Amino acid sequence: MKVDGIAYRSIEPAEDGWSVMIIDQTLLPHRFARVRLASLDDAARAIRTMQVRGAPLIGATAAYGLALAARADPSDESLEAAASALLATRPTAVNLRWAIDEMLAALRNVSREARAARAYARAREICEADVATNRAIGGHGLPLIRAAHARKDGPVNLLTHCNAGWLATVDFGTALAPVYLAHDSGLPVHVWVDETRPRNQGAALTAWELSRHGVPHTVVADNAGGHLMQHGRVDLCIVGTDRTTAAGDVCNKIGTYLKALAARDNGVPFYVALPSSTIDWAIADGLASVPIEERAPEEVTHISGLADDGRVTRIRLTPEGSPAANHAFDVTPARLVSGLITERGVCAASRQGLLSLFPERAGP
Amino acid sequence: MKVDGIAYRSIEPAEDGWSVMIIDQTLLPHRFARVRLASLDDAARAIRTMQVRGAPLIGATAAYGLALAARADPSDESLEAAASALLATRPTAVNLRWAIDEMLAALRNVSREARAARAYARAREICEADVATNRAIGGHGLPLIRAAHARKDGPVNLLTHCNAGWLATVDFGTALAPVYLAHDSGLPVHVWVDETRPRNQGAALTAWELSRHGVPHTVVADNAGGHLMQHGRVDLCIVGTDRTTAAGDVCNKIGTYLKALAARDNGVPFYVALPSSTIDWAIADGLASVPIEERAPEEVTHISGLADDGRVTRIRLTPEGSPAANHAFDVTPARLVSGLITERGVCAASRQGLLSLFPERAGP
Repeated sequence: MKVDGIAYRSIEPAEDGWSVMIIDQTLLPHRFARVRLASLDDAARAIRTMQVRGAPLIGATAAYGLALAARADPSDESLEAAASALLATRPTAVNLRWAIDEMLAALRNVSREARAARAYARAREICEADVATNRAIGGHGLPLIRAAHARKDGPVNLLTHCNAGWLATVDFGTALAPVYLAHDSGLPVHVWVDETRPRNQGAALTAWELSRHGVPHTVVADNAGGHLMQHGRVDLCIVGTDRTTAAGDVCNKIGTYLKALAARDNGVPFYVALPSSTIDWAIADGLASVPIEERAPEEVTHISGLADDGRVTRIRLTPEGSPAANHAFDVTPARLVSGLITERGVCAASRQGLLSLFPERAGP
Repeated sequence: MKVDGIAYRSIEPAEDGWSVMIIDQTLLPHRFARVRLASLDDAARAIRTMQVRGAPLIGATAAYGLALAARADPSDESLEAAASALLATRPTAVNLRWAIDEMLAALRNVSREARAARAYARAREICEADVATNRAIGGHGLPLIRAAHARKDGPVNLLTHCNAGWLATVDFGTALAPVYLAHDSGLPVHVWVDETRPRNQGAALTAWELSRHGVPHTVVADNAGGHLMQHGRVDLCIVGTDRTTAAGDVCNKIGTYLKALAARDNGVPFYVALPSSTIDWAIADGLASVPIEERAPEEVTHISGLADDGRVTRIRLTPEGSPAANHAFDVTPARLVSGLITERGVCAASRQGLLSLFPERAGP
């Protein structure tokens, strides 16, 4: 999407034809800086330090990391070491392992001489596939926004939680893909952006990407969504997800469940946008089966932002000695989800709904 | 309640017998400092700059402000000017006007010579009445905690939102009064403290007062409560309220409604503690009738805390140019409230429930 009129992707080949450009997302929203990845180490560091985050983008970065490793040394030993180094950066990221496996499979039975070129080609394919998936999600979600627009005067008010925008993917995003397509096609939209404590991905990333692309939006505290829905100021919720169960339960950033409850209580449609790669066909009951990561309490007790002196500064919010807990995700039961927006279309949040779009997943 | 073993009230006469000591709540949780009010201007400034906040404490401070004014100049002109100055500090605070009216009524037909003494006496009565009310709320709420304890092993896990503790009142607090009584009587309790964005009264004030009194607690992002309830980690919610309608709808800090929805969805009792002075008998439908204050967007876009250099520092969280909205309160419909804890007892959140405790409010 665009940053002040210029089209970017969150990861793309540099003009030199071999190194890779990313956006250092740790500096957002206060500074927009691109970083060149010129080695496996650069790629691993970018993932580990969360210069890149979001499952699809982590996978894409790992893919290019293997390409950079193959360029430097295409031996089996080099590629195996590269795969291990990349896997260790974010051990729980499902897409990371998937992308590495894809890359290693593509290089199997390829001569050393041909490996670098093949690796770059496969990394590029992985990125293009992500973009195509997200564009398809956007296309399937767009009619929901169009329908909301047909029911009212003025802009369609959407609410989203966390960042499921283009910064989390290679381009377009998942939850925001329909929003960008609507905006670009002239449909008037306005997005309520949950700040998404404690890591503030909404206030920092979603607000930044919407503002730079020119999409009208307003940042609100996570507490505000229920009130906004009670007063008819939200027409549609769209969020992303880290994992969806085969029965349609949705694991997403902590707080998503509260918004789904408010949407249900006020008759506001609540949709979840997802690439089918994040469906976990092996489990059904999200509450019982999805382990919820507990992160460092310092993410709750401390926060960073731009001080008056222009420096990014970390401050403590809580009294010394008060403990904090930091559950990173929650599970929204399928019964609260109006529908799942996938690259193959929109379906009910249920096993039957998912199988209608992915019949190949039905058992024998 | 206690601060590191020493009993304080949020407002109390100084040892000199005429000036008044408050806690500068703007410095919490990073510094505990008491401030002496020695004049009407001191009292007005304390209210205006939010060194004192919370409806009961604002009223108590205004009462002492009038006593200080009467000590300096007991003329009618002086008292009228003092009343106007105090009223202008927080124009929408209902308790402020109530306390001033009480003070002026107490001084009517009192000779100039006797006014200062009468004013101090009435201010003290107003404070003692608040303490008695809160202690009674605590006494009526305590059996709820005791009952929760009887149903389980280990400490009773409560969840609260914002600050309805002793810092918001003269002592004990409203929502936290049952918690303090339980803790002091040896019942094991643990409080999940919503940080309560955007002003962070939970992280700053509730966590501080619980920690200083020695009550086990954990600060969580406002997003976390639903997840905690889904996993059986909350036995009871108790929150305060700024205004309760005659039908039991509850206006409280933004985000309260989301927690009430989660409590209902998970079968967790959700109680609201309130002095009957905050019941608005003139209105029934809170959603339609309670105006919701919109505060400055800077409270969402910026936040203050303690930097590593030991200074309280304000930082910006959002991208430059991203607008923010800041609705301060929301309304929790009576249907989501398990009961109202008042100084006269616990009742259903309904007109009938309230009238069972306050029969004098029934129409003819």
